[in-house]
Amino acid sequence: MTAGVLVIGDEILSGRTKDKNIGYITEYLTNIGIDVREARVIPDDEGRIVGAVNEMRLAYSYLLTTGGIGPTHDDITADCVAKAFGVGISENDEALAMLASRFPQSELTEARRRMARIPHGALLIDNPVSKAPGIEIDNVFVMAGVPSIMQAMLDSVAKRLRTGTKLHVITIETRIREGEIASPLRKIQGNYSDVSIGSYPYYSDDGFGANVVCRGLDPSRVEAAGADIIEALTPLGFVKRVPAE
Amino acid sequence: MTAGVLVIGDEILSGRTKDKNIGYITEYLTNIGIDVREARVIPDDEGRIVGAVNEMRLAYSYLLTTGGIGPTHDDITADCVAKAFGVGISENDEALAMLASRFPQSELTEARRRMARIPHGALLIDNPVSKAPGIEIDNVFVMAGVPSIMQAMLDSVAKRLRTGTKLHVITIETRIREGEIASPLRKIQGNYSDVSIGSYPYYSDDGFGANVVCRGLDPSRVEAAGADIIEALTPLGFVKRVPAE
Repeated sequence: MTAGVLVIGDEILSGRTKDKNIGYITEYLTNIGIDVREARVIPDDEGRIVGAVNEMRLAYSYLLTTGGIGPTHDDITADCVAKAFGVGISENDEALAMLASRFPQSELTEARRRMARIPHGALLIDNPVSKAPGIEIDNVFVMAGVPSIMQAMLDSVAKRLRTGTKLHVITIETRIREGEIASPLRKIQGNYSDVSIGSYPYYSDDGFGANVVCRGLDPSRVEAAGADIIEALTPLGFVKRVPAE
Repeated sequence: MTAGVLVIGDEILSGRTKDKNIGYITEYLTNIGIDVREARVIPDDEGRIVGAVNEMRLAYSYLLTTGGIGPTHDDITADCVAKAFGVGISENDEALAMLASRFPQSELTEARRRMARIPHGALLIDNPVSKAPGIEIDNVFVMAGVPSIMQAMLDSVAKRLRTGTKLHVITIETRIREGEIASPLRKIQGNYSDVSIGSYPYYSDDGFGANVVCRGLDPSRVEAAGADIIEALTPLGFVKRVPAE
């Protein structure tokens, strides 16, 4: 199972708002065995949204989007998703009832009612925080951009996803410079084509180092690769397996 | 002037490492008048890197990449960029001299020497932190993924960019729910086609609210739109213009 993440919003591309959704969604999906293959940030522009939704929903098992489903004029994601699927969009009774549970009739302005416009054929995603629902249509899940709301929606979305086989992952912390572990790692990677070995350098006030991560479907192969790495790197400096979370 | 940002690395898509580069680069480029139109995160995969580099370098004035230029087997960005441009790649004397300024000959391992492999015809980007240079080729700037190193490289890159006309931006903080400001904002947006008016809801323990941002090339038009917004929203609740940074 694979997924793409599409973050929609001018405010992210201007740097005014720092995205927190990509990191949260990728970690969440990885933990339930879904392999995120791409994340993309695009502006609030109809052509760009329609194009990216159609490209990414065909490329991956699932597409999750964030942003652009509020009440203002720049919230155009629902309309663009309808356009991408070639379906109509109109006010949905169930969505309106959700909004009515929060807003008394006098506060259910025309702008707020826009949040009840749902592409035809779509299902709703519950929003326990602010009520305005997300949208599920085919393999596309449209969520809010505000992180606390998106996170609540993602819990509902996750129940509807078919999850993959969870990857077995081990992390090995080293305080050895990446240039010194590169050669032994390359050799070990050659022996384990079914294990993905990544090296992630860090640089802090304490100096340089690199963490090594092994990932694979077969836990025994991942463990064997990890043992080989620890054996090969221990003579070079500090090496410690990080306990699984 | 437009730009795309390409973040390369499995560790970002697995959620293991939280990207900090997109937010930093987009804010930086916006502040020097370059409009970032897209950010994309892709895995350490040759086909994907070559494809994204070619697609994005043609779509935007500049493409900035981060990640994948270290010494290990999964650092394939330099090779992929060479492939994208259809040029060769080999060890570069100037890059090797930079590495030699940090590593004594005995520590200049084969793996570290890989970081001196530079696509033919490319220029180097200085790396004051860990010496291994970044790469400039045509309109593509290849930088490190470690944020402190990327940030140092970006200061060098920025001097080489032709910057656009800086946008005039004003921010108006409100403690009014987005559903209540949507209708007046829509009306004002209709009067200012040359000003982009964005509304960014927030949700915190203190309650709901929305900040309004106006952007445009003509400062007097942006100021006029801002004044109209403040006048229209003040009867609805707390409204305050945020001082420019």
